[in-house]
Amino acid sequence: MEKDFGRFRNILIIGLGLIGGSIAVSLKNSGYKGKIYGFDLSEDRVKKALEMGAVDKAFTELKKIPWEKLDLVIIATPVKTFEKVAKQIKPYLKENVVVTDVGSVKGELVKKLQSILKPVKFIGAHPIAGTEKEGIENSVAGLFKGKKLILTIDEEDERTKRVEKFWTDLGAKVEIMDPYTHDFVFASVSHLPHAVAFALVDALIELSKETGIDLFLYPGAGFKDFTRIAASSPMVWKDIFIENKENLIHTIDRFTQSMEKLKRYIEEEEQQRLLDILSEIRDKRLSLEKEGSDV
Amino acid sequence: MEKDFGRFRNILIIGLGLIGGSIAVSLKNSGYKGKIYGFDLSEDRVKKALEMGAVDKAFTELKKIPWEKLDLVIIATPVKTFEKVAKQIKPYLKENVVVTDVGSVKGELVKKLQSILKPVKFIGAHPIAGTEKEGIENSVAGLFKGKKLILTIDEEDERTKRVEKFWTDLGAKVEIMDPYTHDFVFASVSHLPHAVAFALVDALIELSKETGIDLFLYPGAGFKDFTRIAASSPMVWKDIFIENKENLIHTIDRFTQSMEKLKRYIEEEEQQRLLDILSEIRDKRLSLEKEGSDV
Repeated sequence: MEKDFGRFRNILIIGLGLIGGSIAVSLKNSGYKGKIYGFDLSEDRVKKALEMGAVDKAFTELKKIPWEKLDLVIIATPVKTFEKVAKQIKPYLKENVVVTDVGSVKGELVKKLQSILKPVKFIGAHPIAGTEKEGIENSVAGLFKGKKLILTIDEEDERTKRVEKFWTDLGAKVEIMDPYTHDFVFASVSHLPHAVAFALVDALIELSKETGIDLFLYPGAGFKDFTRIAASSPMVWKDIFIENKENLIHTIDRFTQSMEKLKRYIEEEEQQRLLDILSEIRDKRLSLEKEGSDV
Repeated sequence: MEKDFGRFRNILIIGLGLIGGSIAVSLKNSGYKGKIYGFDLSEDRVKKALEMGAVDKAFTELKKIPWEKLDLVIIATPVKTFEKVAKQIKPYLKENVVVTDVGSVKGELVKKLQSILKPVKFIGAHPIAGTEKEGIENSVAGLFKGKKLILTIDEEDERTKRVEKFWTDLGAKVEIMDPYTHDFVFASVSHLPHAVAFALVDALIELSKETGIDLFLYPGAGFKDFTRIAASSPMVWKDIFIENKENLIHTIDRFTQSMEKLKRYIEEEEQQRLLDILSEIRDKRLSLEKEGSDV
């Protein structure tokens, strides 16, 4: 199918950070012919976006944006600001514009945004892509290529199909999911691993204090891979943790049970049980390699 | 200084797995001129070692080994077998031979081995190198190059200096440490991260069962790096966990405290505390990058 980016011709990206910037440069790089407008509260980021040629025009004041031209608005600010952003832009929106986002949390938040923006259509999107770097200057053209993108929709219609086509044309593999299922799944496979990585580094800081030995001088095999994600943005992750706290707390509790089970087997020297569980875990983990997943 | 590999001319490697094999091929590859003998209970591994040209001669029976020629014996079997191996080889050893190992656990075990082997000198060694692969067929020449190697010695003498030179000539960065400190340090930076990775994958298996959603279809950003070490050998890690259980349980308890602290901050939406702790963790983690550590 021909690349038409869902036939959106005038796109506004709100929030010129790593993800917003990467959408812009990916569009430019994929032969997108429409206009890309950018908005950010920071003069500095607006300047960078223009210098990089990521956007055609950029604004720091909402009222200066040519709202009447827009057919797609992408909210790419931190998750925590979504409700506020939706309320602020609402008065400017034409009824037939489509609003979407790139946030890691969906669920209740999607319902709230839909209700704030009504009758304008809001479609939640979550690209499973990113780096631990921040800022528009670290934007990557092709960041979404081959990566999953979750669209949270209640019912398919012409507008959801256009948003799907937009992302497919940027190279993403779109998957439709219920917003509540989304939040449970990503609490498990992304938010929990981040929380665990943060806790592990915190434990090493505490153990170093307790013993006076700087444990960070001895990063054992695998340690750096393991804690790479603990270098992710504190601000972004604080917001995600709090926004998705019910699911996250549930997965932390399950994880703690797994940790306690392993600890008990070690304490009681349950050789066979320990071997069985470690083997089951390894087999599950190795099955990921075989499926050739691309993350 | 000229490479003389500590002037050891006849080396026996007991246990022809990934580490034993990598020592052999690294020696061959670094211009080592002496003889390398191998021992393994498995005919198959002995055959592979000979086919690969990793060793000059290889044996499956202890009594056939030319013990009178040996000046260095390296125990490279699983940690759990060390005591048994030491008892079995003791009757064959000349008094001036040096015995060493490559195990991840030191502490009490080193004391036991010293007492079993006395008057023969035992020097504990732990190369901080490896892959999650197993078997002599996965041996890597240069596996130890630039990697830390911990020598656990009570007092420096001519023999400890020769073992130090042996490893330095294989490219390792040798560091002297007390055996008990060693076990605490590696419980923290290696055994704990492995236990946490295993527990995380176990939690995802349980959460998948609980909800009927195969979470392993959605490996989020960083998830594969994070759980790579959960693919490590169940047999090797079962033994390490049990051998170093006192230290490991202590570090698991500290980690659980860190996890609970993070959970509490999230539950109570302690924005500032969460931001502070995540920032401190990130800074600590980023300092590892700057030091240009090579693991």
